[in-house]
Amino acid sequence: MPSEFDLIARYFARSPVTRPDVALGVGDDCALLEVPPGRQLAVSIDTLVEGTHFAKGAEPRLLGHKALAVNLSDLAAMGAEPAWATLALTLPAADEDWLAAFADGFLTLAAQFGVQLVGGDTTRGPLAITVQVHGFVAPGRALRRDGARPGDLVYVTGTLGDAGLALLAQQGLFVGLGVVPNLRARLDSPIPRVAEGRALAGVASAAIDVSDGLAADLGHVAERSGVGATLHLDCLPVSPAVRDYVAGTGDWSVPLAAGDDYELCVTVPAARQAEIEAVGAAFGCGLTWVGTVERAPGVRCLLPDGSLLSGAPAGWDHFRDG
Amino acid sequence: MPSEFDLIARYFARSPVTRPDVALGVGDDCALLEVPPGRQLAVSIDTLVEGTHFAKGAEPRLLGHKALAVNLSDLAAMGAEPAWATLALTLPAADEDWLAAFADGFLTLAAQFGVQLVGGDTTRGPLAITVQVHGFVAPGRALRRDGARPGDLVYVTGTLGDAGLALLAQQGLFVGLGVVPNLRARLDSPIPRVAEGRALAGVASAAIDVSDGLAADLGHVAERSGVGATLHLDCLPVSPAVRDYVAGTGDWSVPLAAGDDYELCVTVPAARQAEIEAVGAAFGCGLTWVGTVERAPGVRCLLPDGSLLSGAPAGWDHFRDG
Repeated sequence: MPSEFDLIARYFARSPVTRPDVALGVGDDCALLEVPPGRQLAVSIDTLVEGTHFAKGAEPRLLGHKALAVNLSDLAAMGAEPAWATLALTLPAADEDWLAAFADGFLTLAAQFGVQLVGGDTTRGPLAITVQVHGFVAPGRALRRDGARPGDLVYVTGTLGDAGLALLAQQGLFVGLGVVPNLRARLDSPIPRVAEGRALAGVASAAIDVSDGLAADLGHVAERSGVGATLHLDCLPVSPAVRDYVAGTGDWSVPLAAGDDYELCVTVPAARQAEIEAVGAAFGCGLTWVGTVERAPGVRCLLPDGSLLSGAPAGWDHFRDG
Repeated sequence: MPSEFDLIARYFARSPVTRPDVALGVGDDCALLEVPPGRQLAVSIDTLVEGTHFAKGAEPRLLGHKALAVNLSDLAAMGAEPAWATLALTLPAADEDWLAAFADGFLTLAAQFGVQLVGGDTTRGPLAITVQVHGFVAPGRALRRDGARPGDLVYVTGTLGDAGLALLAQQGLFVGLGVVPNLRARLDSPIPRVAEGRALAGVASAAIDVSDGLAADLGHVAERSGVGATLHLDCLPVSPAVRDYVAGTGDWSVPLAAGDDYELCVTVPAARQAEIEAVGAAFGCGLTWVGTVERAPGVRCLLPDGSLLSGAPAGWDHFRDG
């Protein structure tokens, strides 16, 4: 079998992006990088583990895409401009076909967002993928979780629940012929809302990406900001498939609590509503009002009939659902 | 069980270091960091996997130390000043005693080197630890692998083979009563040569940290630099225990090819020999001449009798030794 050094060199050193701010890339003890003057560095690290985040036998090209996408989504939620990535890959064996497909999925998405792979590590063990992304943001302009204030409006990009419905279908818990193929892409190859996050950075008071489900993620914003919020469920932006699913089952957990949507949830001062609507009008994915920030802690969910959803579903939590 | 968010918050958010260049630390989608003007950012990522890099049941405090130490060693090999770390931790279960001990080992070493933990991820799965470190270095001053030139002198810090001998003892392949406890610390809790790397940055032409064994790591420098080298085995700096082991067995693989020493191997232009010796004299760990860079590719090892060691042992390679 080829050595780990060969593996890194062969599949990942030929990143198609060549950024002038990379003084030294893959192949030394460290990469050497140059942050532009007057910019803060935004960094985030995330791991995907076989059996926890994806099933055994998952398509490596999609895994390569998703491992980078979920990290770019964190930069998007900060309003940052993506720049560099590092990759720590743990593999049970050096399967060259798997590696070629994984690298293709990873590097294709990297090229799409101008991200250069600058370093990595390849180790033997149970399949797991850790990616760290690095981006830039002007001081004071980053979208933090702690800026929401009572009276702020809550908006989300795109639609919610498509990835969750696809996961139910994959697990055999939902059968909806014809719709599933369209939803699968939302689960398997999410597109991080990077441009949207950068556009929102001048306007929103707080932001998070919806990876654990809207209720849980808005809850994180509320907790960090020392506030609460009410969500209006009839206002949640959903695809026809999710709308039909909720209408047929009464189960709001798919748009509210299923993870993996990778949309952005932002809060905006009410005085800037016209501004945020103008910014959102330019988004192909849409930007929808879904609720209001309040002084009382916690996240409340109002059903279409005006009553409160009881036992609001928590987001997917690896250590709580076990 | 507590949620993953609670886990991160409880054990890792209370990093004792508070650096002014951390605008936003653990707890948001990204950390926000400030690289000093006129400095390059040096980054390195490494994973330790249970069953590959450490045995099941390994002491969590030592793992926390080692996971950070091996990454700081990469910064040392670059001559960089450590600043920040991120931690992606995959755990089979949320064992609070384990986490408390791991965090203590990690954060104690971090404090020792002024490193602030700025972000992380906790996931469920087979035990694995990925750390990324970030440091600073002045442009043009970093110790790269590609700067060695024919005629340069090869030096190493400290002593070689102690960690390897401890590993043999741990595996029951070597019995040396009395010496093992002293060697175990070299294997379990290596101290990265950070100050030494920064001092060498002005003088050495190339550097690497000895993680795969001297022969293999000098081989990486030689390959990246387009040169070769000869090592003089009778000049290798070794502890009395390793000297006795080699004398008794004739096995040079312990000082030459066992991994985990985390010493630095540097090359230096011959014209700067007085300078490097002066720098080395200030090191508590010592700095020893072990060979010379040559035009012919490959690494040759000269035995004390002047003959060539045949079949030079390769370094530890996760995908080659499987």
